[in-house]
Amino acid sequence: MCRRSWSRAPRRKPGVPAYTLRVPHSLDSLGEFSLIDRIVSRLGESAARDILVPPGDDAAAWLPEDGATVATIDVLTEGTHWRRDTMSLADAGWRAVAANVSDLAAMGATPSMLLIGITLGPTLTVEDVDALAEGIAGACRAHHVRVAGGDLVRGETTSISIAAYGVARMRRDGTPALLRRGGARPGDRVAVSGTPGASAAGLALIEAGRASLPAAEPLLRAHRRPRARVALGQSAAAGGVGCGMDISDGLLQDLGHIAVASGCGIELAAAALPLAPAAVSILGHEAALDLALGGGEDFELILCGPEGILRSLDRSDLPVTLIGRVVANHPGEVIVLTEDGATYEPPSRGWDQLKHTLSTR
Amino acid sequence: MCRRSWSRAPRRKPGVPAYTLRVPHSLDSLGEFSLIDRIVSRLGESAARDILVPPGDDAAAWLPEDGATVATIDVLTEGTHWRRDTMSLADAGWRAVAANVSDLAAMGATPSMLLIGITLGPTLTVEDVDALAEGIAGACRAHHVRVAGGDLVRGETTSISIAAYGVARMRRDGTPALLRRGGARPGDRVAVSGTPGASAAGLALIEAGRASLPAAEPLLRAHRRPRARVALGQSAAAGGVGCGMDISDGLLQDLGHIAVASGCGIELAAAALPLAPAAVSILGHEAALDLALGGGEDFELILCGPEGILRSLDRSDLPVTLIGRVVANHPGEVIVLTEDGATYEPPSRGWDQLKHTLSTR
Repeated sequence: MCRRSWSRAPRRKPGVPAYTLRVPHSLDSLGEFSLIDRIVSRLGESAARDILVPPGDDAAAWLPEDGATVATIDVLTEGTHWRRDTMSLADAGWRAVAANVSDLAAMGATPSMLLIGITLGPTLTVEDVDALAEGIAGACRAHHVRVAGGDLVRGETTSISIAAYGVARMRRDGTPALLRRGGARPGDRVAVSGTPGASAAGLALIEAGRASLPAAEPLLRAHRRPRARVALGQSAAAGGVGCGMDISDGLLQDLGHIAVASGCGIELAAAALPLAPAAVSILGHEAALDLALGGGEDFELILCGPEGILRSLDRSDLPVTLIGRVVANHPGEVIVLTEDGATYEPPSRGWDQLKHTLSTR
Repeated sequence: MCRRSWSRAPRRKPGVPAYTLRVPHSLDSLGEFSLIDRIVSRLGESAARDILVPPGDDAAAWLPEDGATVATIDVLTEGTHWRRDTMSLADAGWRAVAANVSDLAAMGATPSMLLIGITLGPTLTVEDVDALAEGIAGACRAHHVRVAGGDLVRGETTSISIAAYGVARMRRDGTPALLRRGGARPGDRVAVSGTPGASAAGLALIEAGRASLPAAEPLLRAHRRPRARVALGQSAAAGGVGCGMDISDGLLQDLGHIAVASGCGIELAAAALPLAPAAVSILGHEAALDLALGGGEDFELILCGPEGILRSLDRSDLPVTLIGRVVANHPGEVIVLTEDGATYEPPSRGWDQLKHTLSTR
């Protein structure tokens, strides 16, 4: 009766033995503190062992770098953000880190530390937890961030919550060099990195049972192993771009946030959108366009600013493409124009966590 | 087909209508962004609107105070940390904030900003979300912290993840004034704040159907509306105490962490433990003692340091009681001594998230 917290016995699904019976690698046989040690060990150099207070105390502590603190939290939960049939737990771990770091990239900040809260669902094995930790570690290495601490709990649904901390340089006038949603001005051009829609195309192929197509590989990678555009965000903020965000809910919906926050209209040229070649070749041009406009979770960056600065950000390893302009007309509205000047309305403008619609497959 | 993420249709439980049918106050009718606005509005002055980047952008930003950054993350999930029959969503929101702030109090740090990730389970109504936000806001006011940002997602299980950020003063020698688990030394005395076991006694009464007893009220409050001991942690760290943590898993188990991290033994005097009067009067002395030794989530502080400093921390509104001593013998082990010098072993030494046992009711 003396318990910090408690749990209902997990509901058994037909054919799935209760976790208490899976003896060889059950989480129960290991215990919370052994499992935390195991995860920290799996993180390797991605665990921040040299900070003032490394993982293992009530909280982590480190000396902040000069500049403004920039911080964000994201939750990824099984059944909403991934399913066991769409990606592995290693992918889910990677994706949770990338999604979180992307929010700092979208501000032009330099990410440094992560705090990771993991809820272990009832069917998870120790091998699953190892895979999750290895996915997290891989994404930490790829994004140059480290894990300062975390929390491990058991629950009814597997879930990953990450808080990311970073720093933004202060300008000489005492303001932080940050990309803001409200920073777009009429006359600015609109640019996007990479090929938006690639992640949604990867998911569409998985859901359609076509993930084994060799040509699908870059789209699957975009969905399962996305990369946050940290260097681009930093270059944009340092170069004087004042407005940006990442594509998490869909290009049109996220541009809509910029239009509302900036009190401007935005006009996109459909023909200018950089589509993923694999999406065009497998799904066709129209579907690839619709996915580029409405598909989210690419973690590409949208930037609004002077044309010259935006063009200077283009790199061979990460193209930055001009796709539209910020206007004084229709404030708060985003419209898509075809080459003949007509407006184009895609079937979806993006994802709302609460007002979601089911797959059209 | 263009979605940021997706969700399986929620499994219906017998007698529970699917959320898509509960029209008047369904979350679906409101949408993600309206609901975020509603939560931020409910937070009132607890939303940090005057920082460099307030809630509403990809990440929050603020200017750090002088000192070391101290940060932590905690996850509270329905079914593990609370049930709808043990506390309201307002209580769960309060408790999530207090648990998180307590980790900073346990370091002797000054908490300032929270990032809050909320997963909305399928049966939640708008009124539930309002209650959750109001519980969070109340705990923020009580603990002098504010919400800098957050994330809102839909999932299969309601869950609250909070990352707390604070600051620790640096000493003149360049080290941070922090309470560490590894800071206990032979000769130190052991002290505890308040009356450990009160929260576990409150839960025991709820589970036994005795929550309506008028005498139970302070125990229920300890379980549902705990207070993190921020001022005590700050005073201890500033006064030269080098070792402390909060009681989250149970007094004996948490003292065990200190014993292991410090490489010392700890001896407790059973007769010295400050028991909650209501727990003694309702449950009897032995049960109250066992709950004080093994019951967690009180968020009282354990401190190890010189007797004089510990005694100086005692206050009428928050007693700090000497309960034991740190010894060189039996390193890593905590033993409880009765008045006649015998060792006492309670039925439980505390809670392990993974190796939990079911209620004894």
